[in-house]
Amino acid sequence: MKKKLVNNPDHVVEEMVEGIVLADPDKLSKVEGYNVVVRKDSPNEKVALVSGGGSGHEPTHAGFVGEGMLDGAIAGDVFTSPTPDAVFEAIKAVDGGKGVLLVIKNYTGDVMNFEMAAEMAEAEGIEVDHVVVDDDVAVEDSLYTTGRRGVAGTIFVHKIAGAKAEAGAELAEVKEVAEKVIKNVKTKGMALYPCRVPSAEESTFTLDEDEIELGIGIHGEPGTERTEIMKADDILDELLGSVIEDLPYESGDDVALMINGMGGTPLMELFVANRRANQVLEEKGINIYKTFVGEYMTSLEMAGVSVTLLKLDDELKELLDAPTEINIMK
Amino acid sequence: MKKKLVNNPDHVVEEMVEGIVLADPDKLSKVEGYNVVVRKDSPNEKVALVSGGGSGHEPTHAGFVGEGMLDGAIAGDVFTSPTPDAVFEAIKAVDGGKGVLLVIKNYTGDVMNFEMAAEMAEAEGIEVDHVVVDDDVAVEDSLYTTGRRGVAGTIFVHKIAGAKAEAGAELAEVKEVAEKVIKNVKTKGMALYPCRVPSAEESTFTLDEDEIELGIGIHGEPGTERTEIMKADDILDELLGSVIEDLPYESGDDVALMINGMGGTPLMELFVANRRANQVLEEKGINIYKTFVGEYMTSLEMAGVSVTLLKLDDELKELLDAPTEINIMK
Repeated sequence: MKKKLVNNPDHVVEEMVEGIVLADPDKLSKVEGYNVVVRKDSPNEKVALVSGGGSGHEPTHAGFVGEGMLDGAIAGDVFTSPTPDAVFEAIKAVDGGKGVLLVIKNYTGDVMNFEMAAEMAEAEGIEVDHVVVDDDVAVEDSLYTTGRRGVAGTIFVHKIAGAKAEAGAELAEVKEVAEKVIKNVKTKGMALYPCRVPSAEESTFTLDEDEIELGIGIHGEPGTERTEIMKADDILDELLGSVIEDLPYESGDDVALMINGMGGTPLMELFVANRRANQVLEEKGINIYKTFVGEYMTSLEMAGVSVTLLKLDDELKELLDAPTEINIMK
Repeated sequence: MKKKLVNNPDHVVEEMVEGIVLADPDKLSKVEGYNVVVRKDSPNEKVALVSGGGSGHEPTHAGFVGEGMLDGAIAGDVFTSPTPDAVFEAIKAVDGGKGVLLVIKNYTGDVMNFEMAAEMAEAEGIEVDHVVVDDDVAVEDSLYTTGRRGVAGTIFVHKIAGAKAEAGAELAEVKEVAEKVIKNVKTKGMALYPCRVPSAEESTFTLDEDEIELGIGIHGEPGTERTEIMKADDILDELLGSVIEDLPYESGDDVALMINGMGGTPLMELFVANRRANQVLEEKGINIYKTFVGEYMTSLEMAGVSVTLLKLDDELKELLDAPTEINIMK
């Protein structure tokens, strides 16, 4: 995969951020000089929520900036942690005096740079706290992480902590519910075809024409197993089986289900995957409270799917159902 | 592209339709024995809107079934017109006594089969009328059409005619506003990489590693020009230039803009495209009333983009803004 709809790879993130803001100019703005997207109406009288990371995972994270979810998002270079400076700018742009919660996906560079930014902000008197999402059950440590990777489950943290903040909760309460989501959300993904970073000549990894990778990360990091292409139902059984046994999710549990496309997967195939996920969960007696099928946490044009479950209690259900401007999370 | 997340290609459409309904079981149902998705609350006291066509263009059309848009959608085999029988079943399932408007994309097979279904329904006393969408400015006739092809502009017909029907208009009025949209909507697309039909061994067309195709259809039908890969901005200038001069759209016009991904295009690239489209329209003095960036009318995993403009008057603005359950058209 060599051809891309880009101009200069060096400017692709900046041009993307401009395109995101231009798509919703009444609601969003870009922080001058930084690849940071913020709500136009921030700061306001609530805890502010900020996330970010390397680009290439769109709509994550800038696509989740809006009422009821994030107040700001930092877009690093493609698959590269944003600088502490950029995170610091985002924090300053959205702080309304009630503090800022950073939602960090568990990658070593992200954790380090977000923590440095938090220190810079605290030195200026801004109250900052953070949570680290590590929902990927595939591997315990990885190429870029100590501990598990943060992947599609992060979107549920944005939604639920965002709703809590919008409802007027204090920083400690928003953090607490974010931690509750993190404890109850698990994901596993797979790839059929790799992606290519705009500035690179070659794909981030290679797969043979009859080969797939299970347990893959969102930057082409190795998964748990390379295997011959299987039927969709067998792939789903494998992914969902690993997710279910990890928490574990049990008969009688209520869950939110996310069937997430990795960027290059036709929606047709995601719905075929959703059909099987429904069958498996029904067999296990696990009740689907709400289903999300689409592209949430992508890896450029990688073809593949991830499956996420979030175990819900009454508080999480209410917050998951709370109003948001972000259409794909309604 | 050989690998797909499917089970048996012969059952992929049926399994997809099951997966679509399972993603929103409170609102959608499948007509027993047919690949037809209908609103659970249809029929009701309004004109019903039905569309459909070959599968492989998801979320088109079943993804647009819901309050404020379609009442029913027929999913034919991949890139294959649905049978008159299936269209007839959809018409019967949604008719509430005020008549049914069929929204047909201009492909010879679709027009023929939808018209046969309309005759079958009329013979049973159901009032049926239809419109044919032909928004693709690339070619005057094509492999599968007499006249221009119907592509992404169709979604604006669903939204605006759907809002008119929801507001209680009569069949003739719903048809009239649908015709107004069709007169004012134009699209042109391009491909970087082809797609492959699940039952086929090979892609629907081939492109060299440095080659793109402008003016392409949504089934791999030939476009107007094969050329070397260009910068995103140059591609956008070409597509949008053809669209603008066709109607033509003029300085002072208000438009809705749709930057539509063809299925395998990362969202990053669509936002880069949106940035340039905004620049071009601003230079021309054409005012963007509302922007839609995402996947609306796809061609399986084809990589590429289409650009659609709809010229808006006050009536069309009001109907475009009317409430709908369909999140990506809010």
